[in-house]
Amino acid sequence: MSDAATTRRGIPEASVARLPGYLRALTALAGHGVISVSSEELANAAGVSSTMLRKDLSHLGSYGVRGVGYDVERLAAEITAALGLTREWPVAIVGMGNLGRALAAYRGFEERGFEVVALLDGDPRLLGEDVAGRPVRPMSDLPGLVAEEGLAIGVIATPSSGAQDACDRLVAAGVRSVLNFAPAVLAVPDGVVVRNVDLSTELQILAFHGQRVAAAAAATTSEVVA
Amino acid sequence: MSDAATTRRGIPEASVARLPGYLRALTALAGHGVISVSSEELANAAGVSSTMLRKDLSHLGSYGVRGVGYDVERLAAEITAALGLTREWPVAIVGMGNLGRALAAYRGFEERGFEVVALLDGDPRLLGEDVAGRPVRPMSDLPGLVAEEGLAIGVIATPSSGAQDACDRLVAAGVRSVLNFAPAVLAVPDGVVVRNVDLSTELQILAFHGQRVAAAAAATTSEVVA
Repeated sequence: MSDAATTRRGIPEASVARLPGYLRALTALAGHGVISVSSEELANAAGVSSTMLRKDLSHLGSYGVRGVGYDVERLAAEITAALGLTREWPVAIVGMGNLGRALAAYRGFEERGFEVVALLDGDPRLLGEDVAGRPVRPMSDLPGLVAEEGLAIGVIATPSSGAQDACDRLVAAGVRSVLNFAPAVLAVPDGVVVRNVDLSTELQILAFHGQRVAAAAAATTSEVVA
Repeated sequence: MSDAATTRRGIPEASVARLPGYLRALTALAGHGVISVSSEELANAAGVSSTMLRKDLSHLGSYGVRGVGYDVERLAAEITAALGLTREWPVAIVGMGNLGRALAAYRGFEERGFEVVALLDGDPRLLGEDVAGRPVRPMSDLPGLVAEEGLAIGVIATPSSGAQDACDRLVAAGVRSVLNFAPAVLAVPDGVVVRNVDLSTELQILAFHGQRVAAAAAATTSEVVA
């Protein structure tokens, strides 16, 4: 079965989102010299149920052998190929505020096979400024980055007010994958995928939990009737 | 109805996770001078269905008035109180590698009412090193930070291999809210909430999508039978 056939068959988005976790668990197992793994062990390492794991992997055409399980190296290679991790993906970061600068300095993209090819900002006052060893470039460079560097993934680190415009510029230039750090709901045409990493939402959810812990502590001294 | 009663009643986690989005939409509306908003308008601005919005807000005891909708300022205040955003939350960042340093330099925590009170690392060689104007401190400082500074939220930015240990140290010191950037599944006791921000998973999901785009383009020239 070719990669094209596999991917064209359409793996559910939720299954795709769990593949990186399986790959990490398999990589750790291989590092410990493990040759084969049962679906229960692999599911446990990835923090999902074994039923869900088997279903997810069946979308790749990967079935464990009863009593033997999955071949660790082979399954890792299958997931790596399915995820498109056998090549490097060029990335541009849009928005050179605090978060964009932090991301520009972060080496985690390169370590994972994602090459940051450009830092961009719509503010002409920032153009040419050095950020983490790279010059800030104008948004008008986007079409050239797609055509010449194969830019595939746009990282949006603008304030929420500028996020839709940044997204529109990326999409107009031909980018089809967007990692959005701005706390904004982005509208995109069919065929464009947006993944949201929203630090402020995560922090606010944790604050809610902190509030609940504090309320529970207070309630041990004074009962409140709803 | 008091906050304690509201939070003790138990709002579903999925509803809590959507409250920050409603709050952002309301803040934007208030900034434009909007006094009241229908559930349809607010749901649209937050990117959810109006049925879901009404259900989520009913957990707060907030019901719109038929034909009038929700009072923007009042609902924003109710969500702010429910989320625990009327006070500042002390945060510690654990792990001073590339990501931890990027997060230490990021000003977004403070802007959102989360005060970074300490940077920590288990590696004695890093102790005292200046990162973004703060000294790196040992993990053994955690109990004191909880007792004296009210440390409530631990941010884990270690490699995946050190994440569980960092989490255990935070929990043992009394921290009950964890924001985990390490690509690892963390085990925590009841009463501790972990939110995961996994950049490598998000990037790999986008690579999968890029792979699919490339495969679809290739398939227009050579048909593959599954």
